Amino acid sequence: MLRRGLFKKEMDPDASDYTSSMEEDIRIFKAVVQINAAHVQMLEKCEIIEKSEKNKIIRALSELYEKGVEALDLRPELEDIHMAVEEYVNKKAGKKVGGKLHTAKSRNDQVSTAIRMALREEVLELQEALIELINELVVLASKHKETIMPGYTHLQIAQPTTLAHYLNSYSQAFSRDLKRLNEDYGTINYCPLGACALAGTSFSIDRKLTSELLGFDEIVENTIDAVGSRDFALQTMSSLAIMMSNLSRLAQEIILWSSTEFDTIEVPDELASTSSIMPQKKNPVVAEIARAKASRSIGELISGLNIVKSLPQSYSLDLQELTPSLWSAVDQSKTSLKVMKKFVRCIEAKPERMRKLAKKGFSTATELADALAKWTEVPFRESHEIVGRMISQALENGKELEDLSLEDLQAASQDAIGKRVELSEKRFRESLDLKSCIESKGKLGEPAPESVKKELSKLEELTKKYKKILEKRKKILSEKSARLFESKENK
Amino acid sequence: MLRRGLFKKEMDPDASDYTSSMEEDIRIFKAVVQINAAHVQMLEKCEIIEKSEKNKIIRALSELYEKGVEALDLRPELEDIHMAVEEYVNKKAGKKVGGKLHTAKSRNDQVSTAIRMALREEVLELQEALIELINELVVLASKHKETIMPGYTHLQIAQPTTLAHYLNSYSQAFSRDLKRLNEDYGTINYCPLGACALAGTSFSIDRKLTSELLGFDEIVENTIDAVGSRDFALQTMSSLAIMMSNLSRLAQEIILWSSTEFDTIEVPDELASTSSIMPQKKNPVVAEIARAKASRSIGELISGLNIVKSLPQSYSLDLQELTPSLWSAVDQSKTSLKVMKKFVRCIEAKPERMRKLAKKGFSTATELADALAKWTEVPFRESHEIVGRMISQALENGKELEDLSLEDLQAASQDAIGKRVELSEKRFRESLDLKSCIESKGKLGEPAPESVKKELSKLEELTKKYKKILEKRKKILSEKSARLFESKENK
Amino acid sequence: MLRRGLFKKEMDPDASDYTSSMEEDIRIFKAVVQINAAHVQMLEKCEIIEKSEKNKIIRALSELYEKGVEALDLRPELEDIHMAVEEYVNKKAGKKVGGKLHTAKSRNDQVSTAIRMALREEVLELQEALIELINELVVLASKHKETIMPGYTHLQIAQPTTLAHYLNSYSQAFSRDLKRLNEDYGTINYCPLGACALAGTSFSIDRKLTSELLGFDEIVENTIDAVGSRDFALQTMSSLAIMMSNLSRLAQEIILWSSTEFDTIEVPDELASTSSIMPQKKNPVVAEIARAKASRSIGELISGLNIVKSLPQSYSLDLQELTPSLWSAVDQSKTSLKVMKKFVRCIEAKPERMRKLAKKGFSTATELADALAKWTEVPFRESHEIVGRMISQALENGKELEDLSLEDLQAASQDAIGKRVELSEKRFRESLDLKSCIESKGKLGEPAPESVKKELSKLEELTKKYKKILEKRKKILSEKSARLFESKENK
Amino acid sequence: MLRRGLFKKEMDPDASDYTSSMEEDIRIFKAVVQINAAHVQMLEKCEIIEKSEKNKIIRALSELYEKGVEALDLRPELEDIHMAVEEYVNKKAGKKVGGKLHTAKSRNDQVSTAIRMALREEVLELQEALIELINELVVLASKHKETIMPGYTHLQIAQPTTLAHYLNSYSQAFSRDLKRLNEDYGTINYCPLGACALAGTSFSIDRKLTSELLGFDEIVENTIDAVGSRDFALQTMSSLAIMMSNLSRLAQEIILWSSTEFDTIEVPDELASTSSIMPQKKNPVVAEIARAKASRSIGELISGLNIVKSLPQSYSLDLQELTPSLWSAVDQSKTSLKVMKKFVRCIEAKPERMRKLAKKGFSTATELADALAKWTEVPFRESHEIVGRMISQALENGKELEDLSLEDLQAASQDAIGKRVELSEKRFRESLDLKSCIESKGKLGEPAPESVKKELSKLEELTKKYKKILEKRKKILSEKSARLFESKENK
Repeated sequence: MLRRGLFKKEMDPDASDYTSSMEEDIRIFKAVVQINAAHVQMLEKCEIIEKSEKNKIIRALSELYEKGVEALDLRPELEDIHMAVEEYVNKKAGKKVGGKLHTAKSRNDQVSTAIRMALREEVLELQEALIELINELVVLASKHKETIMPGYTHLQIAQPTTLAHYLNSYSQAFSRDLKRLNEDYGTINYCPLGACALAGTSFSIDRKLTSELLGFDEIVENTIDAVGSRDFALQTMSSLAIMMSNLSRLAQEIILWSSTEFDTIEVPDELASTSSIMPQKKNPVVAEIARAKASRSIGELISGLNIVKSLPQSYSLDLQELTPSLWSAVDQSKTSLKVMKKFVRCIEAKPERMRKLAKKGFSTATELADALAKWTEVPFRESHEIVGRMISQALENGKELEDLSLEDLQAASQDAIGKRVELSEKRFRESLDLKSCIESKGKLGEPAPESVKKELSKLEELTKKYKKILEKRKKILSEKSARLFESKENK
Repeated sequence: MLRRGLFKKEMDPDASDYTSSMEEDIRIFKAVVQINAAHVQMLEKCEIIEKSEKNKIIRALSELYEKGVEALDLRPELEDIHMAVEEYVNKKAGKKVGGKLHTAKSRNDQVSTAIRMALREEVLELQEALIELINELVVLASKHKETIMPGYTHLQIAQPTTLAHYLNSYSQAFSRDLKRLNEDYGTINYCPLGACALAGTSFSIDRKLTSELLGFDEIVENTIDAVGSRDFALQTMSSLAIMMSNLSRLAQEIILWSSTEFDTIEVPDELASTSSIMPQKKNPVVAEIARAKASRSIGELISGLNIVKSLPQSYSLDLQELTPSLWSAVDQSKTSLKVMKKFVRCIEAKPERMRKLAKKGFSTATELADALAKWTEVPFRESHEIVGRMISQALENGKELEDLSLEDLQAASQDAIGKRVELSEKRFRESLDLKSCIESKGKLGEPAPESVKKELSKLEELTKKYKKILEKRKKILSEKSARLFESKENK
Repeated sequence: MLRRGLFKKEMDPDASDYTSSMEEDIRIFKAVVQINAAHVQMLEKCEIIEKSEKNKIIRALSELYEKGVEALDLRPELEDIHMAVEEYVNKKAGKKVGGKLHTAKSRNDQVSTAIRMALREEVLELQEALIELINELVVLASKHKETIMPGYTHLQIAQPTTLAHYLNSYSQAFSRDLKRLNEDYGTINYCPLGACALAGTSFSIDRKLTSELLGFDEIVENTIDAVGSRDFALQTMSSLAIMMSNLSRLAQEIILWSSTEFDTIEVPDELASTSSIMPQKKNPVVAEIARAKASRSIGELISGLNIVKSLPQSYSLDLQELTPSLWSAVDQSKTSLKVMKKFVRCIEAKPERMRKLAKKGFSTATELADALAKWTEVPFRESHEIVGRMISQALENGKELEDLSLEDLQAASQDAIGKRVELSEKRFRESLDLKSCIESKGKLGEPAPESVKKELSKLEELTKKYKKILEKRKKILSEKSARLFESKENK
Repeated sequence: MLRRGLFKKEMDPDASDYTSSMEEDIRIFKAVVQINAAHVQMLEKCEIIEKSEKNKIIRALSELYEKGVEALDLRPELEDIHMAVEEYVNKKAGKKVGGKLHTAKSRNDQVSTAIRMALREEVLELQEALIELINELVVLASKHKETIMPGYTHLQIAQPTTLAHYLNSYSQAFSRDLKRLNEDYGTINYCPLGACALAGTSFSIDRKLTSELLGFDEIVENTIDAVGSRDFALQTMSSLAIMMSNLSRLAQEIILWSSTEFDTIEVPDELASTSSIMPQKKNPVVAEIARAKASRSIGELISGLNIVKSLPQSYSLDLQELTPSLWSAVDQSKTSLKVMKKFVRCIEAKPERMRKLAKKGFSTATELADALAKWTEVPFRESHEIVGRMISQALENGKELEDLSLEDLQAASQDAIGKRVELSEKRFRESLDLKSCIESKGKLGEPAPESVKKELSKLEELTKKYKKILEKRKKILSEKSARLFESKENK
């Protein structure tokens, strides 16, 4: 309907399919209707349209809002949902009145506003899902404060730790993701509406009013910036890519731990699949998909960054292609969080196996080296060498941790520094013992049960804090939304 | 239906949605049915099943092939299309017979086979679309062999060239894309079927037979490699990303040239959109979307590479997530080629404007420097300096190319090297003249009309060569496909 | 020196080169020495080493700090700078004392601490460079508050705006980059030191003390998280990639504007290069490199995200490969900001040319459509159509904006809606006039000179605010640093 | 030296550093000198310069070639190595003669030629390194044709295979990488020299001659394409990214297998590192770095693709930034191949442990299901269910594979299909036995020793074939290179 003025020919249907955003626009349907409502409310307040005109339009929009997107005609020739909504209003309120709907706004400012509105709700949902995941990790960790497991570096058994301590490290990483999403909300929640095509408008509109009606914190001041910037989306996609990289690590670890070789967790039946030909298989497919979706969310970020970096300032249609990447990253993150939460909830850890592995890898060797440095005259570097030598000899003789005696240590010491060390049998034994080794690490953030307990409390507080912020934001949004179509009632 | 043996619980519905490939599998429906048909034909040939069993199954498959994917039950609980097809056959041919369908194959080998089959057809279509784009470029170039335009480097006017020469540079780039796709077909067209889960099978099947029935060139020999490798897809996605980067350059240039400032082409009405508020706008939206889709196809490649690089050898479900990225890259490339072809077909070039610009940018300056090097004693570096100085002075005095006289050159020469040069007025004029400058560049690949003509002929030959190869490939595939369900007829 | 305990063979020299981080470590030299100093101060406070031991070590470190990295032996066999520093201390303070340096810390926590320390300084420098760039944009904009230029969408002339308004849109985008870097600093500035290899230590160290001595805001609590997380780096790299995508847009626009066709700015001689064979060329090479570096900074981000997502929790050596990507992104961003700042400082805008272009593209057409909607009964959609038609006819007749008369509008109106409109000659003229069109857009963020002035003041305040924050941070860091080696004096 | 004509000011030193390619150009030094030699030889043949001039220049170049890049003055103000070489020749041969060196060429065509020349040599080296890696894999596989190991899918033990079979799957993947590099060489080895800035030259040069002198297969015909295309680099970078993703899989698997939990290989001392505080650690650092470098090579590819896609056709300086990404991808790939080759050479596999694991995971379950389908009336789907049930019961009762009896199977059968199956004790035992299971899979590409042997022979042939091709290419290049400076001798 826009073309009649200037063009002689209809758009080529392939080109129309290719450039139409209709399919993706369904996602912003609600936001678009709300934007139109807020805009019309403002136009009337600013005396640009009549009250009766406003009422007619609001009625049509309110009706449309309730009926949902199915009420719209979504032919690609209409280009996008903005035109489809306008057409709907025209039909209901008459072209004379409906024709005023687009006064003092443009699709350029509208679409950016709508994406921000849809995205802020997604961010709140993502935060909620993330909080739920952390909560499940916290619940699982609470059960395993005393479950000793081998800690790894380079995937080699390094030092003993507790399962709770390990799980907390993920919760901490995810809590930073939560913080990033919180900051993203702050970047997103600026209102571009009223910037029009790129240069504002000579109509004396009130941008702060529409911004407030729609629950934004502020307006995007500069009108060119308002229509042409998408860094709010790129910032969010970055946060999601980072979060997904954390989730991928967890997924990978779950896959590893559920292998026959590690065998430290049991994958729950309801989250596993089997093979079409190998009847014994129990595949951790959920974790595999999560790992792969992390790769894809990185791909989406790249698409977005590349699109933006190639453009001049202000609006180009390229920006339309960023939106599917954004939603795809959002959806992949959201579904991944949700199933991984279930996964964590149903995981069954195997403490006996974990303890057995912890013993296997000489995991308390550092503790013994530390003991030498603490209780004898030997500086740490030498004690490190002595213990290294002792283990090398143990390996040659097929001995495990428990088979070692103080005499073995003395022999190694003699070898390494030419003399024996003054360490009591008790301290020798204690430093090799898994449990006392864990208990000796009771400072903040360390693996001992009491430390882990404190960390868990702090994590719970943290998620509560973020939960409160997001609840408040949700409340504002739903209150604002409720009021938008009010004039219908008291017309 | 696979779970009954081992598991106690049904899969969680969210997990089932999350891990099911059903939605994407529609794309490989035809291939999957063909694979089953070929497999069954082979099983009978190898005396693993009875002829009557084969006939029943083939009949069911043939019916399904004709009815299309709609005939299947595609609940996500069935996990994927392989199970849905099997279920269909069970219903039609009875569980007793249908239960033999999965003998000596697995979903792991099947899915890789099916993706290769679907992809090779896409590659042929992509090559066809690419040939059509090159052909349109050739047609346009043929009309503009004598259209002089400014050639740019650094987006600065550099030297005069012809529009045909310019367009040919794109055709050359695209012809290398064509070659790459040709090589990709060679990498794709290996058959993994019969590798089963990863280790082959003790049934004495004949992998070469199924491979041949399905139109493959060869089998993927090693069975672990067969199920676990996707480099055929990554190679194709790389070729598409490179091709799209070429297309993005063309798109970008079209956007530039259709600006008011360049104004060297007219965007056709049927491929432009206007603004919702600026009635004078004629936006080259097709080119903008193409440019953005190039960014996205790079994003898809990254997703794919990242997915693969994180995996151990053999099959992991992560590979399933590579497939949507692959199809998305394919679709974006295909639609982009198709609309850009139309764009090229409808472009109207503006020769007058081009010539005017060519004069503006002192584009023949190099020619003059060359003339000095050719006809006088001055070495090229000095002639470069002399001409640079002349232009610097012209710019200061607001002179354009045509206003310059031999005297200006002599003054600059005096300045630069302390003496005058021996150049005749005629040679001075000729080297500044656009047309004679173009004509002096008549070697292979240069801008003169006769060179361009030769280049165009060679390009036409090249596309014909590739067209012939792809037609042959298409013929083989369609003949093979026709024969797969034959036994139905002569049962 | 570490290997002697366990291994029988020296490391293969190729492997040693391949896995050594020595070359990159030079960058963290200062941080590493400071870390050792703070650690030793703490060890003595916690009574883990003697005062005299501390003094000896501090003296050696202080000496090393002053001499610089050249004083170290950086053979790759030493693996990394941590070992090289330890060796230096051993030499100066004796092995007996020096051997205690590594008590209760590990390379895993040290390297993460050192990267954070080096990175936070880089972030401050980046912010400073960004503020300087914004300041230059503000200076340039201040000169061009009344310079009318065409605003573009889709690279088509859309509506008139002012150069200042345009430049402000960039300043706004960059000010969000500034904010992101500010938040990044908050994420970076947590101290992992004392987490040791991954599980803390049984030595009763005081992590809060070292954290404070080194100018950190807080410690990274969980010790596994402390050694294994790099999201602080990924977050910063994301911010840089987004910032570079903004800078790339500016660079691209500069390249465009300095073309002969646009010709709206003059590239300064001292920032241009010429051609080796085309003496008239003045190439905007700085902007080209900036545009390309934006692509590379995206590549670095991808490297980083991919590295992290493939790892299990805790430390793996893969993380070492993330660091060069981080520094490369930092350096590319920093140099780009610095040269682009110079570029902006030296740009000469061409107001006459800009105004001429603004007239060319019918840029005030929207204003006329708005006038119809404002002053007559015609709703906006119809007024849009009427003006579109008028322009279509003008184009056919070769008329430009200034040639149009009210009669042309009436004719178009008759055509489009079957009747004439009631618009006075004065309002018709005014709405087509560039200057009155600009002046009618005087609300916050719009292009009128007075709006732009307000925006500029706010931008100046904003950069001052961030400048203050960063100065404060710098001061803290330098004070902390000064105190670290103090005991040397009062030994 | 180029600036004197047009510019009034020297380039700003920051800008000069920022835009200079000097540092990277060292890499193409040899190629640049060779190009100049070939060009001069051709200029004389085409009678554009005198023989004596040629001789002087060739002498200077020959001297420079021998002295190496250190003989050049590499100040960034000279912009790039092309200018530095020219300056050198000027000094040696006099400005009069040296000034002719740049006749009929430009830096745009030169740099593309030089990169292609340096890259083709790198490709040959990469192929060589890849062949050596495959050869090591072949050697290792040859030792382990009978070593039974568990095959995995989803990292779950799936079916027994042989270590040789497993290793061959990698060799196969790498042999496709070899093929891709082979095709890349074909794309690279086209000569752009003589295309000059972008439009060729009116000098009657002979491009085919220089192309031949420099060992190219063909010329890049279209001159704009010649200077502006980099798809040869992107194609190579894609191949490297794919190859590195294969290498990353191998690296990852090595890390996994050397864990205490898998414990199926021993990491060689000379390729491992230990911990600074955990004396027992033996870290597979080489594999970790290889895995990370794969991520980085993907990052480099992205940088390259993004740079190219943002440009108009022909030359822009952005292309200069692609080159470091290219070399970085090349170097990372080359060093990775080399150390991973050593790794493979020194790996010690642990057959006993592998066999033990193979028994653990019920890996022969498929074989039993196959046996039921083969020897009884039960269709495969039912046999799959029966065996699944049997394993489920075994797991509940803590039984392993070897504890199972025919009676267990019958019980499961009764449960699943309501009746017993007719399988003899012998066949029951055989299908559960690892060795007979492996031996039953003796078709091409399957795990049985005799199959693996055939596969190994074919792999050896294949690498020999590629080795021969690359040797031939190397010979051509060295012969051509030797002849370039000949005139020096017979002057």
